[in-house]
Amino acid sequence: MNVIQGGVSASQGFTAAGIHAGLRKNKSKLDLAMILCDVECAAAAVYTKNAVKAAPIFVTMENLSSGKARAVICNSGNANACAPDGEENARRMCAAAAKALGINENSVIVASTGVIGQRLNIEAIEQAVPALAKLLSREGSSPAAEAIMTTDLRKKELALSFDVGGKKVVLGGIAKGSGMIHPNMGTMLCFMTTDCAISTPLLQLALSRAVKRTFNRVSIDGDTSTNDMCAILASGLAGNKVIDEENEDFSIFYEALETLMRHLAREIARDGEGATKLLTCTVRGADSEDAAETLAKAVIASSLVKTMMFGSDANWGRILCAMGYSGAAFDKNRTDISFSSREGYITVAKCGLGIGFDEDLAYRILKQDEVTIDICIGDGDFEATAWGCDLSYEYVKINGEYRT
Amino acid sequence: MNVIQGGVSASQGFTAAGIHAGLRKNKSKLDLAMILCDVECAAAAVYTKNAVKAAPIFVTMENLSSGKARAVICNSGNANACAPDGEENARRMCAAAAKALGINENSVIVASTGVIGQRLNIEAIEQAVPALAKLLSREGSSPAAEAIMTTDLRKKELALSFDVGGKKVVLGGIAKGSGMIHPNMGTMLCFMTTDCAISTPLLQLALSRAVKRTFNRVSIDGDTSTNDMCAILASGLAGNKVIDEENEDFSIFYEALETLMRHLAREIARDGEGATKLLTCTVRGADSEDAAETLAKAVIASSLVKTMMFGSDANWGRILCAMGYSGAAFDKNRTDISFSSREGYITVAKCGLGIGFDEDLAYRILKQDEVTIDICIGDGDFEATAWGCDLSYEYVKINGEYRT
Repeated sequence: MNVIQGGVSASQGFTAAGIHAGLRKNKSKLDLAMILCDVECAAAAVYTKNAVKAAPIFVTMENLSSGKARAVICNSGNANACAPDGEENARRMCAAAAKALGINENSVIVASTGVIGQRLNIEAIEQAVPALAKLLSREGSSPAAEAIMTTDLRKKELALSFDVGGKKVVLGGIAKGSGMIHPNMGTMLCFMTTDCAISTPLLQLALSRAVKRTFNRVSIDGDTSTNDMCAILASGLAGNKVIDEENEDFSIFYEALETLMRHLAREIARDGEGATKLLTCTVRGADSEDAAETLAKAVIASSLVKTMMFGSDANWGRILCAMGYSGAAFDKNRTDISFSSREGYITVAKCGLGIGFDEDLAYRILKQDEVTIDICIGDGDFEATAWGCDLSYEYVKINGEYRT
Repeated sequence: MNVIQGGVSASQGFTAAGIHAGLRKNKSKLDLAMILCDVECAAAAVYTKNAVKAAPIFVTMENLSSGKARAVICNSGNANACAPDGEENARRMCAAAAKALGINENSVIVASTGVIGQRLNIEAIEQAVPALAKLLSREGSSPAAEAIMTTDLRKKELALSFDVGGKKVVLGGIAKGSGMIHPNMGTMLCFMTTDCAISTPLLQLALSRAVKRTFNRVSIDGDTSTNDMCAILASGLAGNKVIDEENEDFSIFYEALETLMRHLAREIARDGEGATKLLTCTVRGADSEDAAETLAKAVIASSLVKTMMFGSDANWGRILCAMGYSGAAFDKNRTDISFSSREGYITVAKCGLGIGFDEDLAYRILKQDEVTIDICIGDGDFEATAWGCDLSYEYVKINGEYRT
């Protein structure tokens, strides 16, 4: 598997673009993205589990009921959630894209992200779509990735190439997400493309399985968005034998998909609102993957763990406390806790009790911008990893003044 | 029902005291509290639901298995959780108190609060207990309340008097709690006393019921402590007919107990780490109290709602978002959201959609130090209230540097 350039438009058949449509006040900020495939694609998606769903979620669910799609249109700056005429405006976005691209309206995946509760400026979108369609290119992944950013500081894109049944296959994607992010979700916004030939049911299976192990293991602030969506389009242009069962080709494709999504998930955690560091928590020695996941997510989501990480304070009792209220069973008396980063590795608790450790080394380890919390609970052979970030003054500032 | 002076030592038969035993570095900070009753009391308690429980929790559970107790000893500065010799040291605290007071060791309720994972300085406690016992007095509630504080900025105590079957009954208590506080718990530390004559089973029933409606509806940071405990001692010295069934006297006692606990719960929320304001969220029109409670707690616990309140920004979409992921069923299209404080009342969303509102008035309302979020969901006749606080820079500062 190789990392290649091109992000979401690296796969055969795909182009992408981004434009400033006027939804964001800052004219230098792109705010409308488009992705197109030359041919009809197998399509799969997962959505937010929030009971309050934004209008475009419903329209996309409807359009993807066929298992097929050709294009994506997505704006930032307004979530089109709890907003007047929400579904009508989401449909108008699809219609505008379809008209400019000469495709069917229900071949379009539509998504929005931004402030909840305000009317979408659909007129601005309709006006910008023809120009946006003209910008579509194989080099368009980067502006598309930028156009879906809200409080994100970093663009999130990656593409991979690998062989399936002797054919070179490409898989790429873009994502956004920085706040209102929590594991109990469909996911945040992520659009992926591949030229792999794969049936819709198998594509959905791979996507759902990988989401559980990647995006659903990220927490930034415990808030699950109304607008989360993760969608993938497969053009089949790689020419491999269509994957329509869980065979070896499926395993190869799945591994690449999980790798791509893990990268984007980590990038979202690293870019958490106000974050100064990426936190990785691995729980090993669990008696099931679910137990390991529950424990790792509770640690990553704890405000007290997050603030202690901001302060680079090895106050490990908070980690054991978060594990304790997670709901997963484990034996504190068999639990070891260690921290690591590029500065080194240090064990701070063994068998549930603190051990004498070098506080200066612990501080230097935790001071880095990527820190791993390594927990071993001695119950079995399963493990799981979750990603998050620290909780800083800047998170409070960003979210105290979001609309101003 | 009247509010009276005297806190946890206002009831007949009770005395209290606080002393600096040397667990906290600051010599002016009291860190060891004691409460004593002249006679044996009916006793009831609820404990943290965290699977990682501190050592004193287990010792208190054991001692209260008889349903009787006479004294409480509690230190701050060290949680005696995940610490070497934890249970042995908790038992030594009981033994020291019992010896100084001339009572049985298993008549003592023991509790600790502070840093997790460090050995308790039991020698300092044993040395201080005889002097502490000599300080016991009817005026000792205030130093006892101070001695159990950790990051708390405000002492939390209250006493009420009311009539039960023609007899004047007194009920009082002290509490602490400022961080590591979340609804899914037994509760934080709270000690209450009454001279009401009531059987242990009915005392436990009243306590468990009131905890659900008071302390368990507070969230400060989503973290459930390892040391939470809420205990009540009933001396029976008021001379009322013993309450041993759910009769009218029980109702009167219950109402007073819920009032006391609601006051202490609100005081804990107001004193949340870094808090600049007390948030109250009332959900009305639910089809069950459980649904109303789930919704109100999700709103109060949301980091995004908490930061918007810190910024006094009427970004109500975050409230609907939190309700959406709460897990409780409700119809967004019948949901109204309003804000109120001493500055006035303003409705910002009706039927799930934003309405034009006066942003300046909304800002002035949210700028106050007590703000209510009033939500009506139009499903039925049930309601519930939850309490919390905003999320400020100061919370991050306190918890980034807790051990330093």
